Amino acid sequence: MTAILVSEVGPRDGLQSIKSIMPLAAKQAWIRAEAAAGVREIEVGSFVPPALLPQMADTPELVAFARTIPGLNVVALVPNAKGAARAVEAGVHGLSIPFSMSETHSLRNVRKDHPAMLAEIAAVAAIARAGGVHFAVGLSTAFGCTLEGAVPEDTVVRLAVAAAEAGAMEFSLSDTTGYADPAQVRRLVRRVRAEVGDLLTTLHLHNTRGLGLANALAGLDEGITTLDASLGGLGGCPYAPGASGNLVTEDLVLMLNAMGYETGIDLDQLIAVRTILAEALPGEPLYGFTPDAGPMLDYAERIAR
Amino acid sequence: MTAILVSEVGPRDGLQSIKSIMPLAAKQAWIRAEAAAGVREIEVGSFVPPALLPQMADTPELVAFARTIPGLNVVALVPNAKGAARAVEAGVHGLSIPFSMSETHSLRNVRKDHPAMLAEIAAVAAIARAGGVHFAVGLSTAFGCTLEGAVPEDTVVRLAVAAAEAGAMEFSLSDTTGYADPAQVRRLVRRVRAEVGDLLTTLHLHNTRGLGLANALAGLDEGITTLDASLGGLGGCPYAPGASGNLVTEDLVLMLNAMGYETGIDLDQLIAVRTILAEALPGEPLYGFTPDAGPMLDYAERIAR
Repeated sequence: MTAILVSEVGPRDGLQSIKSIMPLAAKQAWIRAEAAAGVREIEVGSFVPPALLPQMADTPELVAFARTIPGLNVVALVPNAKGAARAVEAGVHGLSIPFSMSETHSLRNVRKDHPAMLAEIAAVAAIARAGGVHFAVGLSTAFGCTLEGAVPEDTVVRLAVAAAEAGAMEFSLSDTTGYADPAQVRRLVRRVRAEVGDLLTTLHLHNTRGLGLANALAGLDEGITTLDASLGGLGGCPYAPGASGNLVTEDLVLMLNAMGYETGIDLDQLIAVRTILAEALPGEPLYGFTPDAGPMLDYAERIAR
Repeated sequence: MTAILVSEVGPRDGLQSIKSIMPLAAKQAWIRAEAAAGVREIEVGSFVPPALLPQMADTPELVAFARTIPGLNVVALVPNAKGAARAVEAGVHGLSIPFSMSETHSLRNVRKDHPAMLAEIAAVAAIARAGGVHFAVGLSTAFGCTLEGAVPEDTVVRLAVAAAEAGAMEFSLSDTTGYADPAQVRRLVRRVRAEVGDLLTTLHLHNTRGLGLANALAGLDEGITTLDASLGGLGGCPYAPGASGNLVTEDLVLMLNAMGYETGIDLDQLIAVRTILAEALPGEPLYGFTPDAGPMLDYAERIAR
């Protein structure tokens, strides 16, 4: 069986997209319970200025807590070198920086053009190397941008190569806008892997238009081994324009387990973790088909056929 | 570009699964509007005793109406030879009979074991041939059955071969229970096509556990050229156990068009047809991500990259 890493990004991508602030104790309970269900990597928060994203202010405490869980890979997002230094100091196993393939989006979001971002990536890489920490670059808006429209695949390939030269140790392709379709996923994964090889491991998909799992399948076919997802699809109504609509961890794990991939995750135990979210975030909608549709056939029975 | 036939089954599979009865005029408006949006095949109803399914009582009138629409392939479901004779008399282009791969389900549903069903298929085939009408067999519960559990793939292959010998001109594989996963779809499509070849054209998928489009993608990879779907996912809440949760036509067309398949369907025009359903079936929920998520990038722009 091929092992696939399901990387839970809800505590970062989910919580930063909603207004409610989840208390530290609830975040800890969430992380503990998901790790107990078999999740092996969790993005616990981001090292941005607390004034900008108060939901993420307790990220250093969360990193320290998550590091006490055996076998869990603790990662965090950083916007720049300053955040990277804080992340290393807090004790993350790995950090990642988003690098928007749409220069308009990059300028709007972090006020940096592509050369300035590549310089920042080099600076973050140096900090990560010095701290003995893994460093990934998320190629965001790789499948299109609401501001620029189509993002040329040549641009994505060129910037991935440049980021690898600047010191990126791993890449994800991110469908920030929910524009990706399976044919495009296959084409772009193939093209980027042709240049940076196995450094491209990850897809970060949104289910905005319902194609999330189909896009995940397309990526798996092309050698993707890590998929980001958010428990309960937390962080955005998939029906609302502009909303995040992360891939739902429960549905992704159902599909992977049913297909015979080795995720190490117990689906029933994973679904039970939703109660922590429901209690800590009253009124916040949770998504996913799997939790309510009832169990599929037993996996062992399926595999035996 | 590869052409893919999207077969609208909402007027049959959707309407037979809900309690409301849609008036004939609304059904006609629906069929007319979907054909105008470019849909080339519609299953307009089923030839079952009206006492059993009053929602389907106007199927003969609907067939006569749909036959007046140029270029539209008009198909209907029949449970047995009696229904087939009525369908041919009404003037369908094609008819299909469900053949449950789970013998328990077959006995429960139509009180026939597998040999009895094969005899019925032979009788229906004779009626279809005599009437100059196309005849498809739907291999239902092919991916598992809520009563029997796993359905052996060997059984599906063996019964498909037997049905072909009995006169079936075309096959669909039906995920009646929402149990299919993409790996299973690939395996089973490959195995059945190895025996009956291009007679297997179609997948009839349910989105009960959110895997509908991923399963459709898996089928396309294995040479499937027709996909059944229901406008607005009519006919079942995908969140409710046992509900039909048909593949949503709008989401399927979005995916196919975005991937560069030729469907002939104008997505905006298709989405507009939802208002007919909403007005004729007040209170009946409609599903799908595409209608509310807003447009993707323009297809021409995507293809140009």
